[in-house]
Parts: sequence; C-alpha cells; structure tokens
Amino acid sequence: MNASRPTHAISPTRKSTLIDDLWSPRVIAEMNDYQFKVVRIQGDFVWHSHDDTDEAFYVLDGELRIDFRDGAVELGPGDLYVVPRGVEHKPFAAQEVRMMLIEPRGVKNTGDEGGELTAENDRWI
Amino acid sequence: MNASRPTHAISPTRKSTLIDDLWSPRVIAEMNDYQFKVVRIQGDFVWHSHDDTDEAFYVLDGELRIDFRDGAVELGPGDLYVVPRGVEHKPFAAQEVRMMLIEPRGVKNTGDEGGELTAENDRWI
Repeated sequence: MNASRPTHAISPTRKSTLIDDLWSPRVIAEMNDYQFKVVRIQGDFVWHSHDDTDEAFYVLDGELRIDFRDGAVELGPGDLYVVPRGVEHKPFAAQEVRMMLIEPRGVKNTGDEGGELTAENDRWI
Repeated sequence: MNASRPTHAISPTRKSTLIDDLWSPRVIAEMNDYQFKVVRIQGDFVWHSHDDTDEAFYVLDGELRIDFRDGAVELGPGDLYVVPRGVEHKPFAAQEVRMMLIEPRGVKNTGDEGGELTAENDRWI
C-alpha cells in the first residue's frame, strides 16, 4: 500500500520556540483523530475539565504544576501526566513552561469553562 | 465530578531504563483507548505496516532511523514522527535507542507481518 508520509521528523521543543504568545496551543502533528500540540504557558490557567476525553501533558522545558481539587502534581522536563476525563484541573507555571499536549482533535483548551483564555483551535505551526 | 487520577507524573525516560529486553514495548500510561509505551531497540526490526492506525514515535535517547520503501527518516532525542496507517516501515538503530510509542491499545508491534519479534501486548512497567 502506498500512502504519503511526512518527509521529516518534528522537534516539539524547537516548534515551541516559534510560538509568539502564551496559552496558545499550536498543532504540530496528527495521529488518527488525535493532535500533538505545543504550547507556552506562564502563570495560572483557569479551573476546567474535559468531560469527554483524557488529556496528556508532556513537559519539554520548565517546571509545571497541575492543581487538582484534592492536591497537585509536579512535572519537570521529560515528565508525562494524563489528566483523566472529568477531573477538574488548573495548570500553573511560576516560570515559563513549554509543553506538548496530546488529545483528540477539537478539544477546547478551557474545556467546559470558556473565558478569555480560550484559544482558537486547530492552529498549526 | 470526582474521578480518580494518578498521584504522580511519569518519566518515560526513567521507565525505559527499567526494561530488561529489547523490542519489548511496555505500557506506562493510557489516554482514552490509546497507550503510551516505552521500548528499547537495537538493530533491525521487520518491515511491517499497520492498516488500521497511525503510530507515533518519540525518541527519548539515541538515534533512530525509520526506513520506508521510498527513503528514510532520522530521529534524535526529542524528535517526533507519526507513521501513517498503511505505510510500510522498518525501525533501525545502529546503537541502542530508547523511545516512546503512542498508539491505540492492542496494536501489534509487528503489524501485519508477525514473526519472532512480535511482542506480548499490554505489558506494563
């Protein structure tokens, strides 16, 4: 079977350095109906949850804290965490963090919450 | 909504150092019906394809080459590549490579090819 394929590998870390603005996830690759995104964040995000899907966080650079209603999880470079569907969470970064998100196409970054930090979807970089 | 959540982040790199054998993917996390796996490889794998799914490769350590019928792609540490469904490929590592695979639960490592390098599925580490 012949199908087209990407000609080169992608460096999520390098892609993340090309993003101008914080809290603005950019798609770098797709796998079936899932997307790999990179995002730069700093400060406090909004409490939210995704009722229909789990969401994977993989830290590229910096120290990320994910707050939950019952505690928090700390991630450094190279750490992976999957937030289960329906679990309220709030990412926090005292200093800038660059990370990769993996989730189904079309997931809204602020989940059920919305608000001014809601990012446009499906922007590639 | 209350749902259980993992208490700690996972380091795929550290998990990969715990694997005793080559070509034996181990599951480290799940996201919906997808699995994150780590694997140590060295040498030549078999030509194969997965007709039903794309497959994501993320290199943790070492230099990976993925051979295709029409060329090859090189991945170093921190590089990501998604092999599209139906595309024949053959991973190759001159020296040991540790990497993360992301794909739907139940995908057989040798795809449609089988053979002695076919690994048991759903082994966690």
